[in-house]
Amino acid sequence: MRLSNLVSLMKERNFDGALISPGTNLYYLTGLHIHEAGERLTVLVVSADGDYRLLAPSLYENVVRNFPVTFWRDGENPYDKLAWILAEFHLSGGRLLIEDTMRADWLMKVIRLGSFEFHPLSSLMRELRMRKDKHEIEMMGHAAKAADRVFDEILSWDLLGMRERELALKIELAIRELSDGISFEPIVASGENAANPHHAPGDRRLRKGDLVILDYGAKWKGYCSDITRTIALGRPDERLVEIYEVVKEAQERAYRAVREGTLAREVDGAARETIAKAGYGEYFTHRTGHGLGLDVHEEPYIGPDGNVVLENGMTFTIEPGIYVPGLGGVRIEDDVVVHDGRGKRLTRAERELIRL
Amino acid sequence: MRLSNLVSLMKERNFDGALISPGTNLYYLTGLHIHEAGERLTVLVVSADGDYRLLAPSLYENVVRNFPVTFWRDGENPYDKLAWILAEFHLSGGRLLIEDTMRADWLMKVIRLGSFEFHPLSSLMRELRMRKDKHEIEMMGHAAKAADRVFDEILSWDLLGMRERELALKIELAIRELSDGISFEPIVASGENAANPHHAPGDRRLRKGDLVILDYGAKWKGYCSDITRTIALGRPDERLVEIYEVVKEAQERAYRAVREGTLAREVDGAARETIAKAGYGEYFTHRTGHGLGLDVHEEPYIGPDGNVVLENGMTFTIEPGIYVPGLGGVRIEDDVVVHDGRGKRLTRAERELIRL
Repeated sequence: MRLSNLVSLMKERNFDGALISPGTNLYYLTGLHIHEAGERLTVLVVSADGDYRLLAPSLYENVVRNFPVTFWRDGENPYDKLAWILAEFHLSGGRLLIEDTMRADWLMKVIRLGSFEFHPLSSLMRELRMRKDKHEIEMMGHAAKAADRVFDEILSWDLLGMRERELALKIELAIRELSDGISFEPIVASGENAANPHHAPGDRRLRKGDLVILDYGAKWKGYCSDITRTIALGRPDERLVEIYEVVKEAQERAYRAVREGTLAREVDGAARETIAKAGYGEYFTHRTGHGLGLDVHEEPYIGPDGNVVLENGMTFTIEPGIYVPGLGGVRIEDDVVVHDGRGKRLTRAERELIRL
Repeated sequence: MRLSNLVSLMKERNFDGALISPGTNLYYLTGLHIHEAGERLTVLVVSADGDYRLLAPSLYENVVRNFPVTFWRDGENPYDKLAWILAEFHLSGGRLLIEDTMRADWLMKVIRLGSFEFHPLSSLMRELRMRKDKHEIEMMGHAAKAADRVFDEILSWDLLGMRERELALKIELAIRELSDGISFEPIVASGENAANPHHAPGDRRLRKGDLVILDYGAKWKGYCSDITRTIALGRPDERLVEIYEVVKEAQERAYRAVREGTLAREVDGAARETIAKAGYGEYFTHRTGHGLGLDVHEEPYIGPDGNVVLENGMTFTIEPGIYVPGLGGVRIEDDVVVHDGRGKRLTRAERELIRL
């Protein structure tokens, strides 16, 4: 079904074929659990005529069932077999879609197999994947619920004096207990470190007066959640408390701006305007959000240039933040789905400032 | 120094330039801690004239110091900047080396910048990286020592009844305590699961009579270790004990075959012959070992077709195994460096069969 949607779109856009290496697109299209086996060529070949065949190393013989497949063994040249499949599918040249994350050494060898014009597969796949079906939204709900539950656990821990790095590890283990694993390395940014939105958890210990940004996510059957909460230890600087309220307000306004038919940039604008009006415009240094699904960053991006028209079934984060160098920072992030024409939060952990 | 070695080799082999995306080659050449930032173009351009310049997104402004660099900002087209650098370096065409693991979408855009002939960078880099210097071997020694210490810790744990998955997590946490982190996801394969050399740790509980394969490694300043030990719980099947002795003997013979000037395949042959003579030839289904360094798999590969001549400073694993479907399996793996003309083990954990 998903493969035939891709084939239809390929025909519509005049592409002749596609070469899809392991990754979330391959999983989305086939449901096969095929991970990249280092440099060993593994690729799904799809033609605009609707033919498709997986070429995979023989170590996948027990994984791939009920799917058209050609295996190759150590000692064989997999590019010979790829050439045969391309010939069988009448793909000796033409406009070929290539998985964006395919290894360059594979593509360099494909170049020698014909006179192709290459285009990134993502341009088509992002259209197919942007609208989630009911099953996908259910999986994302599970991933979001795991993130919420981990937040409740965190609140029960004795955080004072803990190093950022230790807390990040504890969060990771809690996520693993409740889900299929982390969707990305948890971020813990405390005190002045919270002023850096790209901070990597380090040896700084959490102390009284800190605001602490916690940003993490879980996976469920391949689908990601991504939540951020900012909590206070003791009594933080009053300016940080004010900033918290501005970010909370911005996050809520962006959330309420979510509507079927709205442009992604209007949602971004709602957050950005709220923060600018409060006088912190220059300290909101990133987009309001990003799409979420099998990848933790995908379409639709919710930024000032976001020109995707929101539709039911689209899922994305809303995560405005304010980062003041030398002082600290605040970010609040929820996962949202467009449902019955409006936004619906998938993550639902407490958004009021929690003081521990 | 390392960059100038690359430039010399480029000239010798008639390459005009190289495009090196983040990964262990970039780290090896520059010492810069630059990780791939998703789809954001990050690439070191090197010309055979000896010019080099990093092109990186501005988020790396605080990371890259004392190195020729051009930053690009969100909203700018990084490929325009890449085109300028290529022009400055007189690289509008010619034979270009490309980092093997570069994303295909980057390469697809490079294709449009000139009339290049592309070749994989690894062909040159593997020659440069195969012989480790004193500092590198010292780092690998630290990584190996961490793996040894984790093995001693494992022996102190109460393993009976533990799930493979839990044990793998405990091993991972122990590695993280003693090093910069894991060099790959630990493998725990117990009982009949040990018959599958690609087994992923699952829900099976360790029980009396099991042989358990433990395969894991640590990182130290980028350098990897990789150790395997097989331990017994209670009293395993006598055939497995016999197999253990065969594998131990094969591992020892391969180790002793390591000599400066020897071919990699002779080391493989020493292990393979020992196992074949004992009647288990068909159950030794992989190579005897692989090179080890910044990557956990690199040159020289120690297999039947290994035609690298061993030299002082080369580091690799020796890890023969026997896998009998339905019964179980054994693998014993050490990291070895060629030192003063002979093999020297970096990992030194107990190799006799330990019965817990």
